[in-house]
Amino acid sequence: MGFQFNLIKTEKEVGARLGKIITAHGEFETPAFIPVGSQATIKSLTSDDLIEIGVEIISNNSYHLYLRPGHRTIEQLGGLHRFMNWNRPILTDSGGYQLFSLGQLREISTDGVTFQSHIDGSKHFISPEMAIDIQRSLGADIIMSFDECVPYPASYEYTLRSTTLTTEWARNCKEAHRGNGQALFGIVQGGMFEELRDKSATELREIGFDGYAIGGLSVGESQEVMYRMVNHTVPLLPREHPRYLMGVGKPEDLIHAVKGGIDLFDCVIPTRNARNGMLFTSSGKLVIKNARHVADERPIEEGCDCYTCRHHSRAYLRHLYMAREILAFRLNSIHNLHYYIHLIKKLREAIRRDRLLNFCQEWQKERKEKDDLSWESTG
Amino acid sequence: MGFQFNLIKTEKEVGARLGKIITAHGEFETPAFIPVGSQATIKSLTSDDLIEIGVEIISNNSYHLYLRPGHRTIEQLGGLHRFMNWNRPILTDSGGYQLFSLGQLREISTDGVTFQSHIDGSKHFISPEMAIDIQRSLGADIIMSFDECVPYPASYEYTLRSTTLTTEWARNCKEAHRGNGQALFGIVQGGMFEELRDKSATELREIGFDGYAIGGLSVGESQEVMYRMVNHTVPLLPREHPRYLMGVGKPEDLIHAVKGGIDLFDCVIPTRNARNGMLFTSSGKLVIKNARHVADERPIEEGCDCYTCRHHSRAYLRHLYMAREILAFRLNSIHNLHYYIHLIKKLREAIRRDRLLNFCQEWQKERKEKDDLSWESTG
Repeated sequence: MGFQFNLIKTEKEVGARLGKIITAHGEFETPAFIPVGSQATIKSLTSDDLIEIGVEIISNNSYHLYLRPGHRTIEQLGGLHRFMNWNRPILTDSGGYQLFSLGQLREISTDGVTFQSHIDGSKHFISPEMAIDIQRSLGADIIMSFDECVPYPASYEYTLRSTTLTTEWARNCKEAHRGNGQALFGIVQGGMFEELRDKSATELREIGFDGYAIGGLSVGESQEVMYRMVNHTVPLLPREHPRYLMGVGKPEDLIHAVKGGIDLFDCVIPTRNARNGMLFTSSGKLVIKNARHVADERPIEEGCDCYTCRHHSRAYLRHLYMAREILAFRLNSIHNLHYYIHLIKKLREAIRRDRLLNFCQEWQKERKEKDDLSWESTG
Repeated sequence: MGFQFNLIKTEKEVGARLGKIITAHGEFETPAFIPVGSQATIKSLTSDDLIEIGVEIISNNSYHLYLRPGHRTIEQLGGLHRFMNWNRPILTDSGGYQLFSLGQLREISTDGVTFQSHIDGSKHFISPEMAIDIQRSLGADIIMSFDECVPYPASYEYTLRSTTLTTEWARNCKEAHRGNGQALFGIVQGGMFEELRDKSATELREIGFDGYAIGGLSVGESQEVMYRMVNHTVPLLPREHPRYLMGVGKPEDLIHAVKGGIDLFDCVIPTRNARNGMLFTSSGKLVIKNARHVADERPIEEGCDCYTCRHHSRAYLRHLYMAREILAFRLNSIHNLHYYIHLIKKLREAIRRDRLLNFCQEWQKERKEKDDLSWESTG
């Protein structure tokens, strides 16, 4: 029951892909959206909630779990699936991104990264080999090679050096990887330089991975630059392997990237925005704290069949949010994740029927007709 | 479908009561435990969670809901049951307790209480008549008369004055009460003075209520004093109406009071302690953050059939708690509420079978055999 990616079809008009990923913990179709479970929990939700929403795969952060409760503890307890009671596929990142966004006093060498824990300041060192070992202990179905997420903005020189290091680490990861039914994905870096994206993608393909991620985007660059980088990088990735756009994004970003041939996404936006009271609807964002919702009996979105919309009014959700009640986080997260999962399902159907461009036009039109609010401020 | 209390039986040995309360939103047996939903939510739980736990009635706070979102808003939205999507019985307190514990710069007169909101400092006035009107708007099945919860400690003179005022207010509440299918309970005050408890109970009986609560306990007095007051007051209350011990208590307090003839309880202990990581088991308290749980695969309590124990290990719950994850509050709350609801069900069965004393002895014995930890520090 090893990892397998089957390309079911390529959409006629734009080249979007419909695929299937098979893992030891079940299979799912792509394009797929991966909710982010930083520390062995999609914040506020149980596995049963996720299953009801239709979630098919989740991610976890090696960095967080390495620090707390420790990957050895999770291994001793039978691995991450059992630890968190989630029996479907799991992807773990290598810790690279968190090391650079959360870790303190980092020192980078060709061997790896020395850093201080953001929890207690304790000193740690993680090498590419260790990142693979941590992920082996956790037992995810898809694991990621160790990389440096290039900060933004960064000079050509810095980005070149960093991208070279990421390739070096990727090679070490590949060598350390023992299989164990785990698929290993490489991460294309290269910052905002097409030439370095070329270099990174070429080198990773030479090493050979089960899938290819595009990293280092959605780090502060404009949407235009991000789209340019995605459009440039996707054709560099092999057709027969899944393509994963890391940390992206807003609904319109998913649609754009699916059109361009991306198969996998992970992003904190639906859950983080939910906790901040920003809800996704077909007509744009809905800010639940707005006074206009105070006595509104309607659900967040008419016709939405998520648990929250089936049971609760905007008025109640606004009350919970204003009163800082924990239940607000949960009910809002259910709705937003359902929105994302439902969107990606509709994208799959559109690809299956060779109607993707048509779907995208209608999606845009519906949003414009109902509301002229933009997503811009919500990312 | 008005309010009704049927006394099913009185236990042979100790006089504990088995009863049934019938309301417009369904019936339930007593003794019953009422989880506290301060502001239209049992913190972190949905109505479906509560139903799975076996909760049959919940409480809500008039004070909180008057301030936010406002009782008129809830009335406009069809009442509290509909607002929070809970279709079983609801009890609302009058706001008296919160006024004195949360309100600022109070001024008490025979007409009512002037106070500042704990949320925004805005100035408000609530009279007994308004407390009834607020509760009518909310639409609970059982509502409480407006009272002053005597602080602890308090002098005889203060307590006498306060208790006299509470009687006056209770009379005003009774006069303002229009029925509407809502049962109105009176609240016996009198501080820690038997003589004043006598006075309060006698005066309330003369006014006549659908049920009688014992208020002003669990406010800082010793367990011995509290038990003495309960033992003294219960016989003063009419046999044919439900008796409600407000704000109590620990599991052993419930057992003691049920033996003494109490029918209803509400208390934040199971949910508040859950959020603080203190879990109830048959052998005593379990503090989930303790290091000994770090790799413990067992559930909180072997054999417990709550959602949390069926799906999650102590190791996972400890991890969630240490990582300050929202899901910790929810899973812990489910277990603790289940413990309370299960305990009260077992008490009902023991009364039904005239085996209450035997049950209590076995309960004590089980706890002592398994663990010598006391509950003392957990209230």
